[in-house]
Amino acid sequence: MQLTRAADYGVRAMVHLASLPDAKRAGIADLAKAAEVPPTFLTKVLQRLTASGLVISHRGPNGGFTLAAPASSISLLHVVEAIEGPIQLNLCTGPHASGITECHRQTWCAVHNVWRHAQAKLREVLGEASLDALARECARNLELQR
Amino acid sequence: MQLTRAADYGVRAMVHLASLPDAKRAGIADLAKAAEVPPTFLTKVLQRLTASGLVISHRGPNGGFTLAAPASSISLLHVVEAIEGPIQLNLCTGPHASGITECHRQTWCAVHNVWRHAQAKLREVLGEASLDALARECARNLELQR
Repeated sequence: MQLTRAADYGVRAMVHLASLPDAKRAGIADLAKAAEVPPTFLTKVLQRLTASGLVISHRGPNGGFTLAAPASSISLLHVVEAIEGPIQLNLCTGPHASGITECHRQTWCAVHNVWRHAQAKLREVLGEASLDALARECARNLELQR
Repeated sequence: MQLTRAADYGVRAMVHLASLPDAKRAGIADLAKAAEVPPTFLTKVLQRLTASGLVISHRGPNGGFTLAAPASSISLLHVVEAIEGPIQLNLCTGPHASGITECHRQTWCAVHNVWRHAQAKLREVLGEASLDALARECARNLELQR
């Protein structure tokens, strides 16, 4: 029950993008350095974020990556789910859990409700954390350490 | 970020043990049937639960498994952590997170606090779900379906 490395790294890169001034693009080398991630791994992570519509990859000599939406409108939940797919704490709490019965114990199994409740709490906490707020808090913390 | 099969199966077996009358022992075949788990897999899961002190394995002709403590005092969190080890949502939120700094970004990284908060919520929900309450709710639900 642990976040993948890809999601951890993706979050780091996204928070860095959120910290940049408007319209500033980050190249893969800068992003990899800021996120402390091997560039080749980060390239794959960024491909998923681009495919999910959270990041724009600009081509050309002034190319680089930017967020595809205001940082205030992107949450940790968006980033994690873009990389890992919908959070699913157990097999019975998948995106189909409300419709299709994936586990036949589900109609009576009381534990199912606990998994769902835990999953909802987890999604709630991640959903409330915007990249904007996180980037500002990181900057403040770094400033205090100077 | 998903529960292992072992933990899911372990929880099923523990809820079944919690549903038994006092002092009633369950053999591996009965437990495997109730939990719908292959017996060989369940044997390994029960070894971990026994080693963690949550289950007692009684030997002899009247042998079998029982909970090692009242079902009201064992939570889903106990069972999951007995099987998977301490819940650690990200590398930086491990059991040492409060003492040893495992990620050098931790002193300024605002995301670290979100992972810790999410982990605390997850542990809280699982910690509040006792085997006793779950077993009673399962029995009620099954009764209603008859």
